[in-house]
Amino acid sequence: MSRLYIVLVHAPVYNKNMEVITSSVTNLDIHDIARCAATYGARAYYIVHPSPAQQDLTHRIMAFWQEGVGAAYNPHRNEALACVRVVATLDEVRADIAAELSAARAAGITQASRLYTVATDARLYPNTIDYKALRAKMEADDEAYALIFGTGWGLVREEMERADYILQPIYGPSAYNHLSVRSAVAIILDRLCGK
Amino acid sequence: MSRLYIVLVHAPVYNKNMEVITSSVTNLDIHDIARCAATYGARAYYIVHPSPAQQDLTHRIMAFWQEGVGAAYNPHRNEALACVRVVATLDEVRADIAAELSAARAAGITQASRLYTVATDARLYPNTIDYKALRAKMEADDEAYALIFGTGWGLVREEMERADYILQPIYGPSAYNHLSVRSAVAIILDRLCGK
Repeated sequence: MSRLYIVLVHAPVYNKNMEVITSSVTNLDIHDIARCAATYGARAYYIVHPSPAQQDLTHRIMAFWQEGVGAAYNPHRNEALACVRVVATLDEVRADIAAELSAARAAGITQASRLYTVATDARLYPNTIDYKALRAKMEADDEAYALIFGTGWGLVREEMERADYILQPIYGPSAYNHLSVRSAVAIILDRLCGK
Repeated sequence: MSRLYIVLVHAPVYNKNMEVITSSVTNLDIHDIARCAATYGARAYYIVHPSPAQQDLTHRIMAFWQEGVGAAYNPHRNEALACVRVVATLDEVRADIAAELSAARAAGITQASRLYTVATDARLYPNTIDYKALRAKMEADDEAYALIFGTGWGLVREEMERADYILQPIYGPSAYNHLSVRSAVAIILDRLCGK
């Protein structure tokens, strides 16, 4: 079974005018996606934000649930937040996973040597992979997969092109195609790893 | 194809000590679930709250995106929020759907005459229905189905027992079983109505 990582990117992403921006941290993105990560067995959930102030805010929100009153009030949140890692760039994510794989190989815990990055987008690209194919690949090999989600109006084109795979958009029976990133993460994890 | 309704209940629900409480409205429950409802073709998304003050708050949050600056800034939110109905009790939901079915039958739009209520819970009950069976039933008949989600620590036992069906909890590969209600709605709709 492959190792799964979740990545939520706040910069660089598009705004609705397709300008490259940095989006703000959203409290429930931290919680909802961490709880999905815990449910579907992700190794880590990276929150990518270049601003030290926004990184601090994220750490402060998490600390409330990881220490003192919050931790006692709801230990399930604490448990889920344990997998969250706050970093500045997507390159840091790649380096961190590579280091973790290297250490896990050295310890004999895994044979995974390759990190596949899988970008997600509500738009359709020519080189998309569908859910069934990606699920089969993840179940068949023993590598690492990072699912990359953009906030705002999505990941910039350069990051889409850099990814090993681009996952199909989520469609329901209607033409409406504007899920929140929290809902998209939940549905995609369930399609790839749900029972 | 059956008609789908989504119901989010703020009272009566349990808190973590299994006491019966009324929970507060959460801003992103309105948005995320409305966008899921639009994606998966639900007829309506009912927010059940007995407090007039909380109902007003919900209407004010929605109005920001349905009028003026907010509606111009992001018309997709406006579009999704069109299906939201704020009511005080689950009985009001039942009456509203019954009246809508009756009107739709009179207009020759549907033959649906029966409302099936489907309760959801993170706990396992003896009389659960699985996703495949419910999906097959919804695709085969032409009736109305209301998926009922509890906030807080879930729907009270009396409402669980009153439901026609109780849907299986969501499991991933891990033992962690504490998704947010927003994530649960997204995953359940995708399992029942996703492509």
